[in-house]
Amino acid sequence: MIPRYSRPDMVAIWSPETKFRIWYEIEAHACDAQAALGVIPKENAEAVWTARDVEFDVARIDEIEAVTKHDVIAFLTHLAEIIGNDEARFVHQGMTSSDVLDTTFNVQLVRAADILIADLEGLLAALKRRAYEHKDTVRIGRSHGIHAEPTTMGLTFARFYAEMDRNLSRMRDARAEIATGAISGAVGTFANIDPSVEEHVCDKLGLVPEPISTQVIPRDRHAAFFATLGVIASSVENIATEIRHMQRTEVLEAEEFFSKGQKGSSAMPHKRNPVLTENLTGLARLVRGMVIPALENVALWHERDISHSSVERNIGPDATVTLDFALARLTGVVDKLVVYPETMLANMHKFRGLVMSQRVLLALTQAGVSREDAYRLVQRNAMKVWEEGKDFKTELLADAEVTAALTPEQIEEKFDLGYHTKHVDTIFARVFGEA
Amino acid sequence: MIPRYSRPDMVAIWSPETKFRIWYEIEAHACDAQAALGVIPKENAEAVWTARDVEFDVARIDEIEAVTKHDVIAFLTHLAEIIGNDEARFVHQGMTSSDVLDTTFNVQLVRAADILIADLEGLLAALKRRAYEHKDTVRIGRSHGIHAEPTTMGLTFARFYAEMDRNLSRMRDARAEIATGAISGAVGTFANIDPSVEEHVCDKLGLVPEPISTQVIPRDRHAAFFATLGVIASSVENIATEIRHMQRTEVLEAEEFFSKGQKGSSAMPHKRNPVLTENLTGLARLVRGMVIPALENVALWHERDISHSSVERNIGPDATVTLDFALARLTGVVDKLVVYPETMLANMHKFRGLVMSQRVLLALTQAGVSREDAYRLVQRNAMKVWEEGKDFKTELLADAEVTAALTPEQIEEKFDLGYHTKHVDTIFARVFGEA
Amino acid sequence: MIPRYSRPDMVAIWSPETKFRIWYEIEAHACDAQAALGVIPKENAEAVWTARDVEFDVARIDEIEAVTKHDVIAFLTHLAEIIGNDEARFVHQGMTSSDVLDTTFNVQLVRAADILIADLEGLLAALKRRAYEHKDTVRIGRSHGIHAEPTTMGLTFARFYAEMDRNLSRMRDARAEIATGAISGAVGTFANIDPSVEEHVCDKLGLVPEPISTQVIPRDRHAAFFATLGVIASSVENIATEIRHMQRTEVLEAEEFFSKGQKGSSAMPHKRNPVLTENLTGLARLVRGMVIPALENVALWHERDISHSSVERNIGPDATVTLDFALARLTGVVDKLVVYPETMLANMHKFRGLVMSQRVLLALTQAGVSREDAYRLVQRNAMKVWEEGKDFKTELLADAEVTAALTPEQIEEKFDLGYHTKHVDTIFARVFGEA
Amino acid sequence: MIPRYSRPDMVAIWSPETKFRIWYEIEAHACDAQAALGVIPKENAEAVWTARDVEFDVARIDEIEAVTKHDVIAFLTHLAEIIGNDEARFVHQGMTSSDVLDTTFNVQLVRAADILIADLEGLLAALKRRAYEHKDTVRIGRSHGIHAEPTTMGLTFARFYAEMDRNLSRMRDARAEIATGAISGAVGTFANIDPSVEEHVCDKLGLVPEPISTQVIPRDRHAAFFATLGVIASSVENIATEIRHMQRTEVLEAEEFFSKGQKGSSAMPHKRNPVLTENLTGLARLVRGMVIPALENVALWHERDISHSSVERNIGPDATVTLDFALARLTGVVDKLVVYPETMLANMHKFRGLVMSQRVLLALTQAGVSREDAYRLVQRNAMKVWEEGKDFKTELLADAEVTAALTPEQIEEKFDLGYHTKHVDTIFARVFGEA
Repeated sequence: MIPRYSRPDMVAIWSPETKFRIWYEIEAHACDAQAALGVIPKENAEAVWTARDVEFDVARIDEIEAVTKHDVIAFLTHLAEIIGNDEARFVHQGMTSSDVLDTTFNVQLVRAADILIADLEGLLAALKRRAYEHKDTVRIGRSHGIHAEPTTMGLTFARFYAEMDRNLSRMRDARAEIATGAISGAVGTFANIDPSVEEHVCDKLGLVPEPISTQVIPRDRHAAFFATLGVIASSVENIATEIRHMQRTEVLEAEEFFSKGQKGSSAMPHKRNPVLTENLTGLARLVRGMVIPALENVALWHERDISHSSVERNIGPDATVTLDFALARLTGVVDKLVVYPETMLANMHKFRGLVMSQRVLLALTQAGVSREDAYRLVQRNAMKVWEEGKDFKTELLADAEVTAALTPEQIEEKFDLGYHTKHVDTIFARVFGEA
Repeated sequence: MIPRYSRPDMVAIWSPETKFRIWYEIEAHACDAQAALGVIPKENAEAVWTARDVEFDVARIDEIEAVTKHDVIAFLTHLAEIIGNDEARFVHQGMTSSDVLDTTFNVQLVRAADILIADLEGLLAALKRRAYEHKDTVRIGRSHGIHAEPTTMGLTFARFYAEMDRNLSRMRDARAEIATGAISGAVGTFANIDPSVEEHVCDKLGLVPEPISTQVIPRDRHAAFFATLGVIASSVENIATEIRHMQRTEVLEAEEFFSKGQKGSSAMPHKRNPVLTENLTGLARLVRGMVIPALENVALWHERDISHSSVERNIGPDATVTLDFALARLTGVVDKLVVYPETMLANMHKFRGLVMSQRVLLALTQAGVSREDAYRLVQRNAMKVWEEGKDFKTELLADAEVTAALTPEQIEEKFDLGYHTKHVDTIFARVFGEA
Repeated sequence: MIPRYSRPDMVAIWSPETKFRIWYEIEAHACDAQAALGVIPKENAEAVWTARDVEFDVARIDEIEAVTKHDVIAFLTHLAEIIGNDEARFVHQGMTSSDVLDTTFNVQLVRAADILIADLEGLLAALKRRAYEHKDTVRIGRSHGIHAEPTTMGLTFARFYAEMDRNLSRMRDARAEIATGAISGAVGTFANIDPSVEEHVCDKLGLVPEPISTQVIPRDRHAAFFATLGVIASSVENIATEIRHMQRTEVLEAEEFFSKGQKGSSAMPHKRNPVLTENLTGLARLVRGMVIPALENVALWHERDISHSSVERNIGPDATVTLDFALARLTGVVDKLVVYPETMLANMHKFRGLVMSQRVLLALTQAGVSREDAYRLVQRNAMKVWEEGKDFKTELLADAEVTAALTPEQIEEKFDLGYHTKHVDTIFARVFGEA
Repeated sequence: MIPRYSRPDMVAIWSPETKFRIWYEIEAHACDAQAALGVIPKENAEAVWTARDVEFDVARIDEIEAVTKHDVIAFLTHLAEIIGNDEARFVHQGMTSSDVLDTTFNVQLVRAADILIADLEGLLAALKRRAYEHKDTVRIGRSHGIHAEPTTMGLTFARFYAEMDRNLSRMRDARAEIATGAISGAVGTFANIDPSVEEHVCDKLGLVPEPISTQVIPRDRHAAFFATLGVIASSVENIATEIRHMQRTEVLEAEEFFSKGQKGSSAMPHKRNPVLTENLTGLARLVRGMVIPALENVALWHERDISHSSVERNIGPDATVTLDFALARLTGVVDKLVVYPETMLANMHKFRGLVMSQRVLLALTQAGVSREDAYRLVQRNAMKVWEEGKDFKTELLADAEVTAALTPEQIEEKFDLGYHTKHVDTIFARVFGEA
């Protein structure tokens, strides 16, 4: 995570200020629950809330931690400085540091998930708009990078929409995976604290109580969460790769937006680099690389070891900040992508009708020509196109053996692009619920 | 995937026989749909079903492929040999090889998912049984590999149950991810085949039509599928690691089942190795390693390139066969795990009550002793235990300063294991829906 | 590893026959060393060699293993059946199964490395030949997929040569990493066997003794080995990606070899798919995915646990067989790649000289034109090329402001391709040691 | 990379100040070389060096970049502000931004490598010291976590030494991999700059010229570099795992250093957590996760795309800073590890001599007892130890059938620890070059 690839809202989730604020809320809500149980005095619980609007002093907490060597104790000490030692003396009672730390981490991940969900929704809106805009913009479909049959740019956007819509659904599942909290003590037995405290705190924080925890919330949840980020990042790469291909000099069916005044663009108009989508390709690699450490974090020793912690202190912010940035950047790219329908047509016609050769072959056999003869007829005309630069349809219309089997109208019909786009509405209805 | 780590049902899904059988069903159902549309004659569609009970001759198909260099054509040729050339002439009409191959792959993955779901259900049953069996078997909970507070073996099994139950839910989601089929043509436009054919075939095969495909079904689905296998494998490692720890000589709280008669065991009774769970640890690494290639498969070029194919020909069978084997092996290990409750107690008492020092500390402060004094009192008695091998409770009872603050009954109570197990029923109710 | 992506020599290394043959040699050489020490009778050591030319009966060994549940004992039993029980009674004395298994694995990896080294040498020869063949074949260099400045196809081959030459060097280092053997007993102390036995066996097998082993050879060696395979696989992907780009319809600067008679090619001459290089891209993903499990294998517990074994039983064959196949396939692709120099020139001129705009800009400023004016001059002519399809050089020669600063000869010179190729010999000399 | 897991020297390598300083040096040396060629005036080259001792103003450069949107231009503009516009006008002539950026990245990696090499040397010194200190400290060797045969703590340190010594060698190779520079222009043809400039700059920076580059230095080099960091990180995990095992409550053969006064330690003397080595385990996962993105960076499109850049901006600092921190932390842990030889002996005797059962078995057969009888004899005495808590040697000495075959002296000898340590000197000589 570096500033260059970061956005402030996501970064803020991982700031010390946010962290201490969540710690505070957990402690305060826990005090309420303890007071309700009669474990601690009501007035002490209420006293904690006097710090409700206080900005915690991160530097001061760090200062205390430098002495106590314990972050939670440092925070509690600072809290006591604010609300009074006496008032603070029941704060954290019966709790373990992990209760606070693990629940906080999940609150942060939930908030990060909410941003990512909003990012995906924004991306979906852009993709949908561009899909309808280019619903009928014909371009050649390619398998293996080679011209196959016509499709439309709208279908390209639509399939990315469908893919990102699945990712939205996966992201919501991933959010649910980590929307749990635990206040269950040193080994998860609630020996020193009643389960109702956990229930109250989780309820207030928008979490559900972890059904069974140890000292920590089980890490298969986080593994599933980060694996989902890896899938989404790979989809980002998928769209980015398509755009990079479209922008390459020989294809030039689209370009990342380039402001008119931008220096360098007009003296070298051919040299507009798809640097944003290339960058997205790299960011996808980064997020993907964090999946493995998250998976390796699952097998902790007994009721917990702390090996997961250093991993999560890094990939927690890094993966969410990077993916947030990538989704936002991709949304901008999609939104402003400059599409060149004329080049799309020109590319499709690069080989003067040859992409229709398969349809002609089929038509001949359906007209009763043997498979071998049909093949021979198509081949000899295709070769004239390929080697001599002729036009395929013109050659077919001039080939007596071909016209003996197919009328000129039938031949013309094989080159009708409408044949390929006739089901676009059907597909749009499937994807968007409406054509 | 090697025989040593394979089970026959899962292997069978990936056999050529199974593959050709699915190909056949796709082609036959597609013919029905084409006939219903009036595209091909009804009698030709019916003729295809005459091969319904035929075992396809894999060697013969290979022989044909050696000539045609095309697997689908080889199969269709063989099919024509069985049902007659004339009858077969409309088979595959309007379809693309990928329509058959991709839909087949998903049928195989769905079947594999069904086995994995059954595996997980079997594992859950074993974990639940052992959890109730050892619900009250007290053992020491450990953080950082160090004794912390008591818990029970039942809770250990219960947390693995909860984790695997989440995995069951993830596996069902993963199954839904890849339970789609596509018969949409060379670039997914249905140019040469009506969408109703896809709908009919998918319906018959238990799939849903892919809303929008290109030449292939989008690979984010498969990425999510294999990522889920990676999460489950990591949970397998988690349980395996716990058992490996329990079996190590110094701990010996449990052992993988070892048949009485097994040679070597009784001459070296100390040397029973947890080889099954070590093996499971390795298998988890294998499955996890396949997540990255699956994620890299998402970004195909344009309407498809074939780079994903070699990956999937390997990880399709490898990941599912390995995980199936691992889950089954783990179920056996859990089912027959030899648990040693006496050793659990002995281990817990290794430091003669010291694990209760925190409770005593807390009790002293609650009894009005200052934090510093309480600490000093606990410390001086703890040191006698640690350095001189004394018993903690005995020392406390003999310490006048301690007994000035706490009655013998109060001291005794701090060593009551019931304090730690009082919420086991609550937790079981959360995990299993009943205590 | 599946037959489709395998070559027989590499597969043979991993056959049971090969494995048992290496076991035999280790045991026989160990007997020699033991006899030399006087630990066992010379005649018994000699007797072992009577099996020198015997093919071991794998089915028989499997049969015995089904009873003994121990592979090494099964083999030794079978060996005794061949050379006589009495003669065999000192075989394996003082040794541990791991001594045989681990040393054998390394022998197999060394042999695999030798094949991979030969593969790389073959690939290098092909790359070098093609580099010299196309040393002066000018094509446009591209950054970001966008035309930049001219280069030559020979330089493209040369840089792949240099990269694969580095891989050859890495592969030799990787071979050295795992060319060790260990016959050091249950925990590596040589308690039951003299170190000289290890030295003798290693010497005979072309290995060096592992300086310090536990029950196993340390796995950082294997991690480094498989990581190297991952690097080489990524280089395979690098070359494959270049070729896939060159073959795409709009670029078409080269094609994978396609036999004239191959059906389908001439009726759809535009549809020749780079399936081999796409396949190589997938194979690279597979090999890369095996790096992580190999790295995870390093941290075994104490003097060994067996978690690495299931990983290596898979990735040992899989990674080496896949990379061998990939290197051989790539060599064929490079060797027979059909290169289209005319298309290269045509592509370079796609924008009628615009790629030279930067040189013109520089020339103008060097001729004393201010940066702003030079930019304006280049821009207005570039725009005519870009928007009106004019030729850049023609426009410049017709622009009075330009010709006021530069003579026609100077302008002509800016479009001279020799400017870009003048250091090709220098670079070739650096790469190949000669121009 | 977060401050918590960072050390200042390594962090400094990745600061903007360091980066600009290297940029400056490259530009200044390039000017010298250009002047020597007569391409630019000598006085301009000399003028550049007037900034030799200037601290570049990072904020000012950022300010300029905010306008120019180009980092290298921003720097050059700032440089001109310092040395004068006129003097600066030949700086960077003929060069491409990548020439500066890529060469700088390699300079940074080389410096990082130098720190990592020093780290490894420090770790090796600590391991060697501890190895000799505990050369004869006997402990039980364990396979599968189960007692096997005796070894010594010195051998444990020695094998980690040997492993890290291999890593030192790998790190030196990795340093050589990326110790290259390139000043070869937009596509690597030296069209606009003479190769001698590259040679001069590289020479001054301690690099060798990249034999053939494109716009960038080939990324297989960096892949190999980061893969090596992944191997080393896995070795860190290996040592950390051993220590974590040694410190667990039931084993307690060693502990991470714990200062006497540290609060909490003496009231709960059993609760000293191996948090440093657990942390190292997590850090190893992080570094390992960066290997895959580095491998994915190899296959750039044509003469470069910029996808690698965002990856490297992260993993460049992250991997080196994390590994530096980990190696330093591990060195501290090894250096101060508290070793408990008495516990080692106590653990070894946990099963009262049973670990010697195999030696006894062998001795009996060598004394002429049949394999079956020997097994029966060992078994019946072993069972008394295992089930009744007897001492193995005592039982054997009291078993008439055993003493019929072996004298008391022979039985005693089987329990002699010297048998197991007799080759420690040999192994030390192999590892350290001297016993």
